[in-house]
Amino acid sequence: MSANWQLRSSAFTLELRHRFTLANSSRTTTPTLLVELEYDGIVGYGESAMPPYLGETQATAAEFLARIDLALLRDPFRTAEVLGRVNAIAAGNHAAKAAFDIALHDWLGKVLGQPWYRIHGLDPEQAPVTSYTIGIHAPETVRQIAAAASGQYRAFKIKLGGRQDREMIGAIRDAAATPIRVDVNQGWHDRDHALREIEWLATQGVELVEQPMPVASVDDLAWLRERSPLPIVADEAVQRLVDVRSAAGVYDGVNIKLMKCTGMREARAMIERARALDLRVMLGCMTESSCAISAAAQLAPLVDWADLDGALLVANDPFDGAMLSDGRIVPCERPGHGAVPRSIADPRVESSAR
Amino acid sequence: MSANWQLRSSAFTLELRHRFTLANSSRTTTPTLLVELEYDGIVGYGESAMPPYLGETQATAAEFLARIDLALLRDPFRTAEVLGRVNAIAAGNHAAKAAFDIALHDWLGKVLGQPWYRIHGLDPEQAPVTSYTIGIHAPETVRQIAAAASGQYRAFKIKLGGRQDREMIGAIRDAAATPIRVDVNQGWHDRDHALREIEWLATQGVELVEQPMPVASVDDLAWLRERSPLPIVADEAVQRLVDVRSAAGVYDGVNIKLMKCTGMREARAMIERARALDLRVMLGCMTESSCAISAAAQLAPLVDWADLDGALLVANDPFDGAMLSDGRIVPCERPGHGAVPRSIADPRVESSAR
Repeated sequence: MSANWQLRSSAFTLELRHRFTLANSSRTTTPTLLVELEYDGIVGYGESAMPPYLGETQATAAEFLARIDLALLRDPFRTAEVLGRVNAIAAGNHAAKAAFDIALHDWLGKVLGQPWYRIHGLDPEQAPVTSYTIGIHAPETVRQIAAAASGQYRAFKIKLGGRQDREMIGAIRDAAATPIRVDVNQGWHDRDHALREIEWLATQGVELVEQPMPVASVDDLAWLRERSPLPIVADEAVQRLVDVRSAAGVYDGVNIKLMKCTGMREARAMIERARALDLRVMLGCMTESSCAISAAAQLAPLVDWADLDGALLVANDPFDGAMLSDGRIVPCERPGHGAVPRSIADPRVESSAR
Repeated sequence: MSANWQLRSSAFTLELRHRFTLANSSRTTTPTLLVELEYDGIVGYGESAMPPYLGETQATAAEFLARIDLALLRDPFRTAEVLGRVNAIAAGNHAAKAAFDIALHDWLGKVLGQPWYRIHGLDPEQAPVTSYTIGIHAPETVRQIAAAASGQYRAFKIKLGGRQDREMIGAIRDAAATPIRVDVNQGWHDRDHALREIEWLATQGVELVEQPMPVASVDDLAWLRERSPLPIVADEAVQRLVDVRSAAGVYDGVNIKLMKCTGMREARAMIERARALDLRVMLGCMTESSCAISAAAQLAPLVDWADLDGALLVANDPFDGAMLSDGRIVPCERPGHGAVPRSIADPRVESSAR
C-alpha cells in the first residue's frame, strides 16, 4: 500500500431511463467522470457529471484533475485552503472541482468515521421531499408518467417555456394532485406575460417557479417577485458563493447544485449565506450517479426544497447510495457521503493510476 | 462503566492574576461552573464563566443544567436539535447553555478523533493575533504593564469611557507601539464627542472601537460609523444569532463570545451570518479557564480579531488548553476542543454525580 495520495479518474456514460427532452435539446445519456482519491488504504469517491450544454467534458475534467498537485493534501483536513488552491488552478471547471471536493469529503468523512450530516449536527428527518423531473412529452405520455410516479414522489418538476405549458400541467393534474415545481430556464421575456402565467400556475397546485426570465432581466425579475403569488427561485443566475448576494431582492430563493458550485464545502457556505440574506434554498442536481447525489443528500436537511432525483433517472447507476424513502432522498448512514461502488471490480469503472 | 449519559458540574472560583477594574466595578475573582458530560468512557468538558454583572451564578447555571433531560442525547450528533431543545428549556442562562454546548462538542470531537478546527476544515495559522486586556490603573502602572506585555502580545485592549482615557493611551504609547483596541462599553453619550475621541484615537495606533455609545442609540451609532476612521464593533448590542442582522448598517463588526451566544454551534452560525452581511468579526471572551477559551480557539481561524486572553488573566487555570504562540491563541491539536483538566484528581475540580 502506497503512502502517497493517488487520484484516479475514469470516464463513464450514464444511461438515462427515459429520453430527456428540454426546449432546445434531447438526449439519452449524460457523460460523467468518476474519481477515486486514495491514501492510507481509504478511498474517497467523487464524480463530475457534465450535461453537454455546460461546456465541460470528460476530457477537460480529467485534464483539470491532472493539474492538481497532490502535495496540497499534506494536511487533507485543511479543506478551506486545499479547495481554495484547487479553485485557483483555473477558472471554470466547476464539475471537475466538484469531483475533487466530493472525493475529499468522502475520504475525510471516512477518517472521521461518520456521514457528513452527522458531522454537521443535522437531523436527517429534516431533509425535504425531492421533486421528480418529468421531461417534455406529449400530454398523454406526461399523464402516464405522472400517474406511475405519484405513488413514490411527493413533488414533480417540469420544464416550461415551450408551447404546451398548460397542456403539460393539465396532463399532470389529470393524473395526480402532487405539488408541481416549474423551471422556465429563462424562457419568458415579457414580465406581464410571466406574471399572468405564474398567477395561473398558482391556481394549479404549483409551488414555485425557477428562473422565469433571463438572468440579465434583473429589474423585471425584481418586479415579478414583488407581484408573484409563488416563490421565484434563481437557477442560472446563481452558480457560486459570490453570486448569492446578488439574488437578494431579485429572487425569493436560490437553487444550489454541487456541479455548479464546485462541491460540498462551497454548497454549505452558500446555504448559510442564503439564509443570512433571507433567501430560501433549493438543493438541485444534474443527471448524475448516486455518488454526487449522496454527497448533496448529506446537506439536504439544511434546505427548503430538494431536487435530487438525478440518480433515479439513471439506468446504470454505478453507485449504491442515498435512497428514496417516503418521497425524500435520505442521506446515507455510512461514513463520508456514503455512496459505494456497486462493484469495485466492475469493468465499467476501470481506474487509471496516475 | 455506565451506558448512561452523565452530566456533572462543580463550582470553581477563577482567581485573577491582577485585580480587574472597570469603570463601575473591580474584582479579583470570576465564578465559573465546570461541567463534565460523560458517555461510554468519553468525557466532554465544558464551562460556564459568569462575571457577576451578567446575572448568572454558579447556582442558576447548575439548576439550569439539572433541568436538561439527558434522554435528548439519544443521538448526540444531532446538535441542531439537541441544542435547540436545551435552548428552549428557559430564556437566558446563556453561560449555562454554553457550558453544555462546549462539553457536547468536546465529546463529539473526541468521538470523531479530531479537534474542531480540523473538522471544520480550517487552517490554524489563520487565527488572528489576540489582544491582551489592560485594566484601568494609574498611568505609571499601565506603562509598566504595557512594557512587560509588549514582548508577548501583538495587540492590547483597554476599557475607555473614564476620565483618564487619553492618559491611558499615552501611558501605553510611552511603553510600546503595539496596536490598541478600545472598548468603551457604551460610555459615550454624545455622538460629536464620540467622533472627536475616535478621530484622536486613530492618530494613536488604535485599530478599532467597541461599543462606543449605548445600544439604544442606533441612529447615532450609524451616524458615527459613517464618519469614523476606525471600525466600530458591536459588543453589548449583539448577544445571539438573532441579533446579528440588526448590526448591519449600524456597526462594522460584531464581538461574538461563547458565554453570550450559548456556545460553539451558535457562534459558528453567527460568524457565517456576519460574513454574509459584510460585518467583520471579533471572537471575544470573559475571564474564563482554558476550557472555554480552547473551545473558542477552535473557531478563531474564521474571524478577523481575537480577544481570547481570558485564561491568561487567571492564576489558577484548572485546564491545560490553547496556548499563546507568537501573539495568537492557537487551537489545540487534541480531539474536541482539546482542553484537559490539569489534574483529574485535583480536589478543586471535585465532581458531584447526578
